[in-house]
Amino acid sequence: MTAKLTYRAAGVDVEAGKDFVSQIAHHVRSTYGPAVIENANGFAGLYSIPGQVGLFARRCDNPVLVAGTDGVGTKLRVAQMMGKHDTVGIDLVAMCVNDVLVQGALPLFFLDYLATGKLETAQLVDIVKGIAEGCRQADCALLGGETAEMPGFYGPGEYDLAGFAVGMVERARMIDGRRRTRPGDVVLGVASTGLHSNGFSLVRKVFFETAGMRPDQVVPDLGGPLGEELLRPTRIYVRSLRSVLDFYRVKGVIHGIAHITGGGLVDNVPRVLGRRCVARLEKSAWRRPPIFDLVQRLGEIDEAEMYRVFNMGIGLVVVVAPYYADAVARRIERHGDHVAVIGEIVRGDGPAVELV
Amino acid sequence: MTAKLTYRAAGVDVEAGKDFVSQIAHHVRSTYGPAVIENANGFAGLYSIPGQVGLFARRCDNPVLVAGTDGVGTKLRVAQMMGKHDTVGIDLVAMCVNDVLVQGALPLFFLDYLATGKLETAQLVDIVKGIAEGCRQADCALLGGETAEMPGFYGPGEYDLAGFAVGMVERARMIDGRRRTRPGDVVLGVASTGLHSNGFSLVRKVFFETAGMRPDQVVPDLGGPLGEELLRPTRIYVRSLRSVLDFYRVKGVIHGIAHITGGGLVDNVPRVLGRRCVARLEKSAWRRPPIFDLVQRLGEIDEAEMYRVFNMGIGLVVVVAPYYADAVARRIERHGDHVAVIGEIVRGDGPAVELV
Repeated sequence: MTAKLTYRAAGVDVEAGKDFVSQIAHHVRSTYGPAVIENANGFAGLYSIPGQVGLFARRCDNPVLVAGTDGVGTKLRVAQMMGKHDTVGIDLVAMCVNDVLVQGALPLFFLDYLATGKLETAQLVDIVKGIAEGCRQADCALLGGETAEMPGFYGPGEYDLAGFAVGMVERARMIDGRRRTRPGDVVLGVASTGLHSNGFSLVRKVFFETAGMRPDQVVPDLGGPLGEELLRPTRIYVRSLRSVLDFYRVKGVIHGIAHITGGGLVDNVPRVLGRRCVARLEKSAWRRPPIFDLVQRLGEIDEAEMYRVFNMGIGLVVVVAPYYADAVARRIERHGDHVAVIGEIVRGDGPAVELV
Repeated sequence: MTAKLTYRAAGVDVEAGKDFVSQIAHHVRSTYGPAVIENANGFAGLYSIPGQVGLFARRCDNPVLVAGTDGVGTKLRVAQMMGKHDTVGIDLVAMCVNDVLVQGALPLFFLDYLATGKLETAQLVDIVKGIAEGCRQADCALLGGETAEMPGFYGPGEYDLAGFAVGMVERARMIDGRRRTRPGDVVLGVASTGLHSNGFSLVRKVFFETAGMRPDQVVPDLGGPLGEELLRPTRIYVRSLRSVLDFYRVKGVIHGIAHITGGGLVDNVPRVLGRRCVARLEKSAWRRPPIFDLVQRLGEIDEAEMYRVFNMGIGLVVVVAPYYADAVARRIERHGDHVAVIGEIVRGDGPAVELV
């Protein structure tokens, strides 16, 4: 079948595939910048390397491509239970671009793989709408995608999503916390919007099996329906972090950045620490969103386990030179994110996290 | 959890995840070239832009990134029926890198997404082994991957795969057949290895439902067991095509290249033709592998449908200036591919294919 854009549908009815692609075209195009080279009916997406396109303040001398892939995990099941499909695409983009971002790179483009049992156009259009929204928030182009119809692999209304993001950074400005963090550094925590996209096998078990709740059930602690809280999209930190990375480009005050996903603060923060560095984090230093208390209470989960599975309110950790901590925090907040000083780096048997 | 390489396992038991990643490490590393920047425990894969690394004969002035994503489709079910998982990874890489290649670009790196119901280490290691083999055949680095355990989405022993490939090409040497093909051009067909990775919903229905056959059944027409034929990996055309693209870099004798996937010759060749171009293909000009006759006979599928679903023995179509046709064909054959002149471009109501 022919396909507009470089967005393809495989194994599907030709007319249904064309209809789908025509319905998502304006969403996809809404993410295009000048670097995207139109390639209707082409086999792959084309992206002109920046430097030429003014995306970076200056030209890269030794550009490094930074690539990451991720999925949304079983959070998708919540979307499928609720029949609400226009936000999981934001999660998909977030999971990938935040990983690219923490290496110090700016995301350039994104591609998605969408597999389903039977192409249900309205549902898939909603999914791609969310992906396009995520790409706009991340200032990256939705360069292409594959939609596969795989009957027998996925039941009616079921789908899985995989995402792929590519960014770029000048080699000398890559951020490798393992080499840069040092005792005395300040640990900033940037607020998450809630559960983000991790721990959902446990979350679904606690709410829907143990507690026997329904997604449409209003929970006073949460100020609304349970399902709405569970589906709240993962925060995309591109704009606030880019502002910091651009501003402190030369000074190198950002010593390490960690994206807090599966494994929580406990497993992800050490990935950006040197061997003699321990991040001593003070749990009372930030606001813990009520969803975490609810999961913990209903699931009777011990405190240590909570911090190993969930982000507990912190979606991104930024380790900075102490002198600049306030200025960096203010700059991030200017873009709508909430930031708190959540701890400091101390000398010890690292890389490790100590929660006090 | 911590992860060696930038290959991550999500939603899985920590120890099982570590064990898996340690078992695939040498396969993944076998694909690394000098452009890969080691980033153990990092959040994303790092790839130094070529030009610096001698991948291209000369430096790119206006580099364009070329990115594609694809899956293996329901060919996976055959692998799962047979319990043979070390070749579908080659298909995954092939489907992506051949798409990148036909734009005139050389694949640089690849990432995979592997979702399964329960992490079965031996099975997943076999899959990644195949992916690494495909990457070596395509001379590209397996830069990272995500392994997601999603119980409830996938049954025991079931999995889905998505792949992402990124390549690069100098802008002036991108191949856009819609602008370059012209009447008089010669159409070369490069042999497929069989079904490749398309049409498997139909194939499985014909063999396993209509004909009631089993994968281990020896079929005289095929010279071996049915399952072996069905699982034969998709051909990766990187080395033979690169040789041609490098050699004729300046002359521009390659007017268009099409990767023949779902939709067959009928749908894919027109994607690289101009509006007044018709590719007149002579079906008797190439050897049609016996698997296609068998599918057609058992499934009572009409001839036109066969050419719309399957590659019918041609995995790649190269449209060239007539003067160079023989030389280009010989150069491709030097790398072990079989090439035939399968037709020519004539003036007509294009872009279209005419099968005679």
